[in-house]
Amino acid sequence: MAPFGRFLDHPLRSLAEEAAGAALKDAGLTADDIDVIFFSNSVAGITTGQEAIRGQTALRGTGLLGKPVFNVENACASGSSAFLLARTGLLAGAWRRALVVGAEKMTHADKSIPFKALAAASDLSEIPEGTDTGGKSVFMDLYAERTREYMARSGATQEDLAAVVVKNRRHAGLNPAAQFRTPVTLEAVLASGEVAWPLTRFMCSPVSDGAAAIVLDAGEDNTTNRPAVEVLASVMASADPAEPANYVARVARMAYEAAGVGPDDIDVVELHDAASPAELEYSEALGLCPEGGGPDLLRSGATTLGGRLPINPGGGLVARGHPVGATGVAQLVEIAVQLRGEAGPRQAEGARIGLVQNAGGSVGGATAASAVHILARR
Amino acid sequence: MAPFGRFLDHPLRSLAEEAAGAALKDAGLTADDIDVIFFSNSVAGITTGQEAIRGQTALRGTGLLGKPVFNVENACASGSSAFLLARTGLLAGAWRRALVVGAEKMTHADKSIPFKALAAASDLSEIPEGTDTGGKSVFMDLYAERTREYMARSGATQEDLAAVVVKNRRHAGLNPAAQFRTPVTLEAVLASGEVAWPLTRFMCSPVSDGAAAIVLDAGEDNTTNRPAVEVLASVMASADPAEPANYVARVARMAYEAAGVGPDDIDVVELHDAASPAELEYSEALGLCPEGGGPDLLRSGATTLGGRLPINPGGGLVARGHPVGATGVAQLVEIAVQLRGEAGPRQAEGARIGLVQNAGGSVGGATAASAVHILARR
Repeated sequence: MAPFGRFLDHPLRSLAEEAAGAALKDAGLTADDIDVIFFSNSVAGITTGQEAIRGQTALRGTGLLGKPVFNVENACASGSSAFLLARTGLLAGAWRRALVVGAEKMTHADKSIPFKALAAASDLSEIPEGTDTGGKSVFMDLYAERTREYMARSGATQEDLAAVVVKNRRHAGLNPAAQFRTPVTLEAVLASGEVAWPLTRFMCSPVSDGAAAIVLDAGEDNTTNRPAVEVLASVMASADPAEPANYVARVARMAYEAAGVGPDDIDVVELHDAASPAELEYSEALGLCPEGGGPDLLRSGATTLGGRLPINPGGGLVARGHPVGATGVAQLVEIAVQLRGEAGPRQAEGARIGLVQNAGGSVGGATAASAVHILARR
Repeated sequence: MAPFGRFLDHPLRSLAEEAAGAALKDAGLTADDIDVIFFSNSVAGITTGQEAIRGQTALRGTGLLGKPVFNVENACASGSSAFLLARTGLLAGAWRRALVVGAEKMTHADKSIPFKALAAASDLSEIPEGTDTGGKSVFMDLYAERTREYMARSGATQEDLAAVVVKNRRHAGLNPAAQFRTPVTLEAVLASGEVAWPLTRFMCSPVSDGAAAIVLDAGEDNTTNRPAVEVLASVMASADPAEPANYVARVARMAYEAAGVGPDDIDVVELHDAASPAELEYSEALGLCPEGGGPDLLRSGATTLGGRLPINPGGGLVARGHPVGATGVAQLVEIAVQLRGEAGPRQAEGARIGLVQNAGGSVGGATAASAVHILARR
């Protein structure tokens, strides 16, 4: 993973090159060892003007061209989509080694551009003509409404939503690649400025630049002398606007079944806290606690590093940062590092099986792309 | 295939819906029978502002959401990329039935937009600041230069380049879905206005809107009582800017090897005539004639309908039209229809094995994505 942050002067290309190079080095491989590249990016067309062949342009300096490059997009779940398709290609025997690169350049000298870019991850036909997308994500009003419903249902308080941020910022403080590495207090989160009640600014994932990359190998080969990580399941669905609820629970069930494990077997989790309340909701949908039990799970300390089931040990989207097309890949990198036992001060003790949940886009109030992956230390 | 043309008032959504519905109907299936959707589009971010979840927004009215949707992009080879990844997913056993949809909306009330969109299919960092992309594709200067080199090498004349257009317009006249269905004379092609010598306007593929869709089935099932078409090979590579030449020949060799057939076994071809000279060059690269033999092959009449090896029976890009993300899918549809023996007045007699060649994007003078597929009547 290349560091996430606000790098106004770094082009998409330098972010992608750094992550791709780091992944190859980590695997002890060179560009020649790679058979295919899956490139995840969501909004470069709007932030940089480059469409169509984003991976080829971003990676042209890496020696990787000459292999097939597939450009894959699914809003905030672009990274999961690229990873899933790469794995599928290896399972089919089409290629032996794939490089998955997720990269996103969100910051822009024109500060309205990142929000225009985020708006393009929802169905534009649903956004009333003339809506001002400058300065705020159109998603945050949607998230706020969902959060109010969730609070009424579960008894979660605004303090719970803030406590998720306190936890994830503490985790991010132990992650050198995270965007926000300074701890914050509950009071500071609550006082960070209202976005749409009950959401405050620190509860929302920031505008970020960044990239992450993964080498997938189809064989039993381990090119390093370190623990290998196996993908037990990689599942994706789009939600049906006619039945938008519980899609994460459905995808999770499919993933548990494919992996042959259940929620009790999971040791560590990275989930999609685009806004902090999502962490509580998704804990329930993933079966990590009973329905309505998200706030209790958080309050028990189980999901903090040192607890029995660390959630978002890398800092999550609210603290590691959220460069849209890179996020899903970064989540997978964090879990792989955890399962290898290489997470240093943020290590989830003895983690053997990890889960990644990643979601993106909105169509008719339904999530456009929703993924769950389950990985295991071999 | 939905008709290609200039449909200023039709949104991307209506184009995609029409093609998806037609493909399902043709296969005797409904949305419920489909397990996964691969959506190909290249420039909607620029022509419509919609990024990130283009397939979900374009298909939201079809009953297909609820399944996974993957948005795939590779400039003019986006359709081939989506098709290849769908096939790979079926080979891996991840899904049983896939729907591949390619759709593109190029026309715009602001006539400079389609050309800006096309510019985004080359590496923008190579286009000098301040270049006027309005009114002409940045690709055409590149094509013209390549064509002059090809003419010097092969002895092709400007009349040969025009004769390709005359042939492909005649073919398109037999294709109800083609954009240009009126025959033209050699003189009219030569007098149609110089784009960049030796290219004239009619030699260049037009700005088009359109969509095409394909149902792929992993099993031996044939849901219709009509001939089934099998995919023998589907291969893609990006060209290496360090070695840009002969990438089509390389991809073709890989495809022939994977399919277990050779150039002599091919009965009908759809190839990527983004400008008409490409038809002659690619005929050579695909091994359909000796090197330098492209002009002779054309002059012999072999590549005209009724000849021994019809090329671009559907009209090719110059006459069927070229809605970027739909093109690769439309080429595959044409070959499938030919192999089924259902092409009516434009039928290539007795065709059993067909080839599709599709290419897109430019990075450092190298083609960013280059595909060859070989299909057979079962």
